[in-house]
Amino acid sequence: MSEQQTRTSRLAALPLRDELRGQAPYGAPQLAVPAMLNVNETTYDVPSDVVDAIAKEVRRAAESLNRYPDREFSLLRQKLAEYLNRELARDASDFGAAAVQLTGEHIWAGNGSNEVMQHILQAFAGPGRSVMSFPPTYSMYPLYARGVYSDYIAGTRGPGYTQTPDDVAAQIRAHRPHVVILCSPNNPTGTALDLAVVETAYEAALDTETMVIVDEAYGEFRQPGTPSALTLLPGRPQLIVTRTMSKAFALAGGRLGYLAAAPEVTDALRLVRLPYHLSAITQAAACAALDHAADLMANVERIKAQRDRIVVELRGMGLDPYPSDSNFVFFGGLLNEKDAWQHLLDDGVLVRDVGIPGHLRVTAGTEEETTAFLTSLARLAENSTAGVTAER
Amino acid sequence: MSEQQTRTSRLAALPLRDELRGQAPYGAPQLAVPAMLNVNETTYDVPSDVVDAIAKEVRRAAESLNRYPDREFSLLRQKLAEYLNRELARDASDFGAAAVQLTGEHIWAGNGSNEVMQHILQAFAGPGRSVMSFPPTYSMYPLYARGVYSDYIAGTRGPGYTQTPDDVAAQIRAHRPHVVILCSPNNPTGTALDLAVVETAYEAALDTETMVIVDEAYGEFRQPGTPSALTLLPGRPQLIVTRTMSKAFALAGGRLGYLAAAPEVTDALRLVRLPYHLSAITQAAACAALDHAADLMANVERIKAQRDRIVVELRGMGLDPYPSDSNFVFFGGLLNEKDAWQHLLDDGVLVRDVGIPGHLRVTAGTEEETTAFLTSLARLAENSTAGVTAER
Repeated sequence: MSEQQTRTSRLAALPLRDELRGQAPYGAPQLAVPAMLNVNETTYDVPSDVVDAIAKEVRRAAESLNRYPDREFSLLRQKLAEYLNRELARDASDFGAAAVQLTGEHIWAGNGSNEVMQHILQAFAGPGRSVMSFPPTYSMYPLYARGVYSDYIAGTRGPGYTQTPDDVAAQIRAHRPHVVILCSPNNPTGTALDLAVVETAYEAALDTETMVIVDEAYGEFRQPGTPSALTLLPGRPQLIVTRTMSKAFALAGGRLGYLAAAPEVTDALRLVRLPYHLSAITQAAACAALDHAADLMANVERIKAQRDRIVVELRGMGLDPYPSDSNFVFFGGLLNEKDAWQHLLDDGVLVRDVGIPGHLRVTAGTEEETTAFLTSLARLAENSTAGVTAER
Repeated sequence: MSEQQTRTSRLAALPLRDELRGQAPYGAPQLAVPAMLNVNETTYDVPSDVVDAIAKEVRRAAESLNRYPDREFSLLRQKLAEYLNRELARDASDFGAAAVQLTGEHIWAGNGSNEVMQHILQAFAGPGRSVMSFPPTYSMYPLYARGVYSDYIAGTRGPGYTQTPDDVAAQIRAHRPHVVILCSPNNPTGTALDLAVVETAYEAALDTETMVIVDEAYGEFRQPGTPSALTLLPGRPQLIVTRTMSKAFALAGGRLGYLAAAPEVTDALRLVRLPYHLSAITQAAACAALDHAADLMANVERIKAQRDRIVVELRGMGLDPYPSDSNFVFFGGLLNEKDAWQHLLDDGVLVRDVGIPGHLRVTAGTEEETTAFLTSLARLAENSTAGVTAER
């Protein structure tokens, strides 16, 4: 037997839970190539003043690492609330969105939004309960459900992977999930939901006693005029809006996901979180990054410009990009997405094959990375019988 | 209604899982007093060269925080294996313990041993399965079981909270738990298990298809001549030994728990861990601390000296301390542990009331903190009708 076969047969000999037998661990390939545009990271380097601030705050925290961290991560929650309040104030002044003021009591956080989602599902889903989302959407949702032994319900989308208020509400009423996850902007398609979808879903969820999560991991990349579901929080205790510092804050390696919701929701999550789940170092690093939000948001604007450039240029190649409110672009029109993926990789550009025929997803990177991607794809498109479909 | 009542009634209105209704969150009180000896932290400051090393490594990691961390935390696993190998080599040369060589493949880690335990129970316990431990022991074990919806079985101990090989094995055979947790040294009693208990428990566990966890959170504080259960790992794929950097490494705030087991056990845990659960910052900080293990172990020796001093002096006061292989001492002989706890707190010394009549638990702190504790308790003991029992 090979070493891998030996490991596999030894694993099978352990008293593992039945539903885990034969499963493979989650994981996007981690390949080192010049343009890594496959996992929607911010590809700009962390600005040096942010690196300095993180190092300084972590150094300060390191002096008392012998002590357990603040279990309530109060300073971090306060800074997260202040950050969201600034965004909410901009939306209110620019687009007349509802004026909402959050406090630390509305905020919860975890080691990545993975852990935040796990806390939500531990409290409101779990065994004998169900979790619903609407594929194609973030591929972790079924795994979150499996992790807490919940049933997973795959809802459906309309043409072009769109969602309408009535259709979403009808599916909630039909399936009565304990938790429903709306992803906006949706990953992998990139498009944000109209808030009417969230409002109508919430009305149905009140009848079915369903918690409604709006996953805004890519919220900062929304097109102008698209308000956040945060504006819907007042008066909606079953609504939870999740965010992450992985994307807009360029902190994927720092693992800080968070949410805003009614204070009683955070009380529920306190019952399931393992004590001291957020290290003093994580709290310090996230606080330092929040103190430099303005610097980091400058990169968000640069990324949005590249994102919009990708959409325009792909259209020019006869491809079919979806409207994007995120830091990536999902596009169709490829004759064979696997050949296109390999062609790009051969040119040093790693993108994501999300398993939808004729489609790929690319992260908007720096101007240089975006140029490398577009140049490689244009070469493919020139030979249209090999690369892209003639018709849309 | 008061604000608290309002929050409670609003929480009750959410579609929370039934078994969480009316529960209160875990939490030792976090009071700021001169001698905080209640949660078994290392009370020595983090050595300045360790602070420097952590700051330097985190600074380096911060430069690429825009990227997801190494999902396999390979360097950290390698350094943890090397650290344990040095301890194993010392035990082998000093006491003739079995020579064991671990590699990174034997190691798993999480955000605190809390998360490591959660991963183990998600894979090997979960709904419809059971977890057993032997109270009085670490109070989180039933909460870990609740967190994964497992049944919790409270085993029993013999006189003086001891455990014998035959009794433990008989209880495993009687209850057939899916996971059994042996805590050695045990918290709150402080005493390490004879390895014969682990060996005999493992024989029973083979028959009952039970995973055996030996929780050695305080393993570095063992008395000389007490080998680690790590020495039993070869040929025992159902055995898992957990450790933490919170205690000996003075890294409670850094949240790094880990385990050593057969490589196929880590394969099982990879199926349930959320991807990228360990941040690049956590990995960097833990690696830096491991590079300074020798410095940190010097404090372990200082703490052991204070621990042994506490045992001797408590005996001299007519109290009843348990033999301690840990960084704390559990002692009986108090007329009223609640009065004694308050008397100590009034003197600026916070210890732990673990809910056992006549008993308290105190962390071995610095020489000064230990003196403050002993002086305060001696004052109480002088008035023996108020403080300590006449007989043992």
